[in-house]
Amino acid sequence: MYQSSLFAPTMREVPSDAEAASHRLMLRAGFIRPVASGVYTFLPLGWRVLRKISAIVREELERAGAQEVLMPALQPAELWRTSGRYAAYGPELIRFKDRGDRDFVLGPTHEEVVTALIADEVNSYRQLPMTLYQIQTKFRDERRPRFGLLRGREFLMMDAYSFGENEISLNAAYEAMYEAYERIFARCGLEFRGVEADSGTIGGEGGSHEFMALADVGEDTIAFCAHCGYSANLEKAEVGRREGEPRADSANGGATSPELVHTPGARTIEQLTAAMGVMADETIKTLLMVADGQATAVAIRGDHEANEIKIKRLLGAETLEMADAGTIAALAAAPAGFIGPVGLKLPLWIDFAVADMETGIAGANKGEFHLRGVVPGRDFPLTRVGDLRNAAAGDPCPRCAEGRLDMRKGIEIGHVFKLGTKYSVPLQADFADAKGASSPIVMGCYGIGISRMMSAVAEQHRDDRGFRWPAAVAPFQAHIVPVSWKDASQRALAEELYRTLQAGGVDALLDDRDERLGVKLKDADLFGIPSRIVVGKRAAEGIVEYSERSRPEAEAVSAADAAGRCKQRAAMT
Amino acid sequence: MYQSSLFAPTMREVPSDAEAASHRLMLRAGFIRPVASGVYTFLPLGWRVLRKISAIVREELERAGAQEVLMPALQPAELWRTSGRYAAYGPELIRFKDRGDRDFVLGPTHEEVVTALIADEVNSYRQLPMTLYQIQTKFRDERRPRFGLLRGREFLMMDAYSFGENEISLNAAYEAMYEAYERIFARCGLEFRGVEADSGTIGGEGGSHEFMALADVGEDTIAFCAHCGYSANLEKAEVGRREGEPRADSANGGATSPELVHTPGARTIEQLTAAMGVMADETIKTLLMVADGQATAVAIRGDHEANEIKIKRLLGAETLEMADAGTIAALAAAPAGFIGPVGLKLPLWIDFAVADMETGIAGANKGEFHLRGVVPGRDFPLTRVGDLRNAAAGDPCPRCAEGRLDMRKGIEIGHVFKLGTKYSVPLQADFADAKGASSPIVMGCYGIGISRMMSAVAEQHRDDRGFRWPAAVAPFQAHIVPVSWKDASQRALAEELYRTLQAGGVDALLDDRDERLGVKLKDADLFGIPSRIVVGKRAAEGIVEYSERSRPEAEAVSAADAAGRCKQRAAMT
Repeated sequence: MYQSSLFAPTMREVPSDAEAASHRLMLRAGFIRPVASGVYTFLPLGWRVLRKISAIVREELERAGAQEVLMPALQPAELWRTSGRYAAYGPELIRFKDRGDRDFVLGPTHEEVVTALIADEVNSYRQLPMTLYQIQTKFRDERRPRFGLLRGREFLMMDAYSFGENEISLNAAYEAMYEAYERIFARCGLEFRGVEADSGTIGGEGGSHEFMALADVGEDTIAFCAHCGYSANLEKAEVGRREGEPRADSANGGATSPELVHTPGARTIEQLTAAMGVMADETIKTLLMVADGQATAVAIRGDHEANEIKIKRLLGAETLEMADAGTIAALAAAPAGFIGPVGLKLPLWIDFAVADMETGIAGANKGEFHLRGVVPGRDFPLTRVGDLRNAAAGDPCPRCAEGRLDMRKGIEIGHVFKLGTKYSVPLQADFADAKGASSPIVMGCYGIGISRMMSAVAEQHRDDRGFRWPAAVAPFQAHIVPVSWKDASQRALAEELYRTLQAGGVDALLDDRDERLGVKLKDADLFGIPSRIVVGKRAAEGIVEYSERSRPEAEAVSAADAAGRCKQRAAMT
Repeated sequence: MYQSSLFAPTMREVPSDAEAASHRLMLRAGFIRPVASGVYTFLPLGWRVLRKISAIVREELERAGAQEVLMPALQPAELWRTSGRYAAYGPELIRFKDRGDRDFVLGPTHEEVVTALIADEVNSYRQLPMTLYQIQTKFRDERRPRFGLLRGREFLMMDAYSFGENEISLNAAYEAMYEAYERIFARCGLEFRGVEADSGTIGGEGGSHEFMALADVGEDTIAFCAHCGYSANLEKAEVGRREGEPRADSANGGATSPELVHTPGARTIEQLTAAMGVMADETIKTLLMVADGQATAVAIRGDHEANEIKIKRLLGAETLEMADAGTIAALAAAPAGFIGPVGLKLPLWIDFAVADMETGIAGANKGEFHLRGVVPGRDFPLTRVGDLRNAAAGDPCPRCAEGRLDMRKGIEIGHVFKLGTKYSVPLQADFADAKGASSPIVMGCYGIGISRMMSAVAEQHRDDRGFRWPAAVAPFQAHIVPVSWKDASQRALAEELYRTLQAGGVDALLDDRDERLGVKLKDADLFGIPSRIVVGKRAAEGIVEYSERSRPEAEAVSAADAAGRCKQRAAMT
């Protein structure tokens, strides 16, 4: 394409609310423009990247045996009522009435639609296994859209659904998709990790993995062990327990009962440690929560964070929230900050790390007082003990005997999930086996955020001057920049190179604008096209300068050589 | 692809509400499935056709210099308020509030979004001309969705927008798109006509064309002249006037004034002609209408149909509707059916055909009476005369001196429209010319119904047994059908052919199912893949049967020959 006819409006200043580097660059380089909060138009360069990513996704999913379909965005609410999600989904689900006053939703995902389809069309084991996928615009009314394409309200997504007879075929489909994902992300040039993820009450162990692109802007935290390769979303990451780990204990270990200490105003762990001159890991914090309407207390070491997903799972609860001030006042003898496990009249869950303490400092269940020298098991029961907290850097790896956990930030770019029969049961998607016996179809679901992936690639492939797109997803493969478009021999050589590249299947952009070289190179850096050929004063001799965006030393080479290098570069990831 | 793993659930019985042949076949052959009224899922075969059509559209639009973008479906109502369409669009526009209580619409079209983008990003004549397009899902809450993909509520559409400095650049963009459309429809194997269409109050003459695929199921009527090639949507088709045309006149031509006739109960033209023993073309019907709140009468010959679009245009009215009973009672001296032009106290418009009558029969403006021998110009004024009716078969062509109009039914598959500055003015999309003077950008808009086109192609390419897809849009190019998949030599030859075809770029479907030949051929006819190779008992000799769906005589040929023919066939439209 000739650049003078490319619609790529660049910007010098970007809005101050563009927090992520990828978002700022996409605005600056004219890849996207906002239409509303979390809603974007893809301009030609952005759309080209999106199409290249989509093409890779299609190729790899077809290779894995999945078939492409297209389901509608408009979905009758009735289907969502049948699955139970119409009420459960919350305000992210966009709802409206059609002109006949029927309730509809705008699809944030398609489990209901696809399961209803399969319920109608599949009835025999002969039709299984099968995996369907689509690449489609999805809608979620996010509370706080941010980071450009990373958290939008309208976004492009690949979602796939597998259907099989049993766990064995589910596992096979899951593996095939997992491997396809690895190929997709690798081809797009991403540094990523497949991590264990929480799968709620369905799926069991290994029932869900997320794929995380490593990036500081990521909203997820990955806990990983460099020793054995274990990695998991922090939501899910288990905490290893090892004999002989050092234990932090508070003073007063020898007393036969806890000592009451006056701690006025010490409501937070920070205030408490300051007041008493101890470390946070010597303290126990006791949280009041409401799980499915039942009040429950949870005791965590002061330096740790409670993990609500683990707690929910351990309790088998559908909903879990922190108790509000009113609930605390009704149930506890002291205000928040002074509650403790000793003598508490509520079901009490103890985190492993608390159970492992010899003594600790805890709330006294009396306003403005704490207890020093509390001994777990002696002063409060250890009947309900479990892994209730977020893993922390330095924790022992839960899988191997030597490694310790480390933390990285990640962007969730994909998800694979063993659904089991969660949707096939309510939507009556059954099949008859060889003997004629009927069972619900066993399903998996799989998602890749296509537009989010574009941001993730951008986060990993950029510098101060602009993007550095991997060849496989770059909007163009080669950028031809004549120093002066008015110079006849430069122009002739540039156009010849353009024709050669296009004929050789290398998508080229030719900067035919009447601009200063500095302006042209600045835009070229911003766009981030992998190969660059500058056609300058040696054009008459057939000599040009070849460079790469990710390795910018320019080399004087023949035009034919430059074209060859562009072609070689285009074939790389 | 191997057919045993293709999800293409065929049906014997289709729902009785599937009125169009294309709709019935798409259901029967497993190309689509309904999710709600006017809302469909595209199954793998249907999606393949849609993708092939989209690819052709992209190729031809890129060749015409248009650039692809993707705009969002979620659009802030604010943009629609600015253009004035938020109120005007009616119940087809799906509206909802987001979680922040802001009004949004689901895009049925994108003039507002694209014009707002251009208002922000284009400011100089140097950035013009430019044409942007997208292929995207659109939403219109149709009052009566029908005919499957022909009139749906969610559908795939290509919409394009051109931006230029003036009428000249608009005309150039319009021409380029018009020609691209012709190539697109021809490549997809459609029999179609580009017809003049109404462009409302904008655009002037030649400001809008529709592309119609000829099909009896079409909801539009095309008036055309076989002699000179004139063709127009009936909404817009002009009526030619020729000297010496025979005139139908009622009796009583010699009297000096009309004669009052008692015609009890003759409220309709049918009742009137029966009661008086005359032909409909001897009568004059007088319609009361309300244009922009003003009552107006319109006189049309009894055998003609009023054309509201022409009337609206002639009156320069924004809105036009038939007067209701209350309005008639308030304004006219007689009830509907007995109103006539003689002595009527309302602005009166006369159709050319009425002005051309020597005498006629008309309502007497007195209940249960008509007037015979009414002479236009003598008994009522001919001050406001115009073309107010639909053209009818046999009418003189408005363009040439000899031809007469004929009528065909058509499906509107595309539209090109000169918008002018309708959106650029309210949305302030201005540019500065070379002298720095600012003017609004002159726009055109262009649409192709991609999913509707799929139905139109299907309507034109089918028979009792199924589809007969043109090669360019067929879901597969070649269908390999072994008589018996269990026969080792048939299977080996079929698989060899499959590999040969795939390697040669011919998309093949191999029926590897363990079914009777009759079942396989029935499905093959239904799917309508252009080339077919039946591998039967002469497989061991390397001989197969080649046939084409549109020309089913089978020929025994060598496998290599059959593969060659498939390849040749795939290259045809």
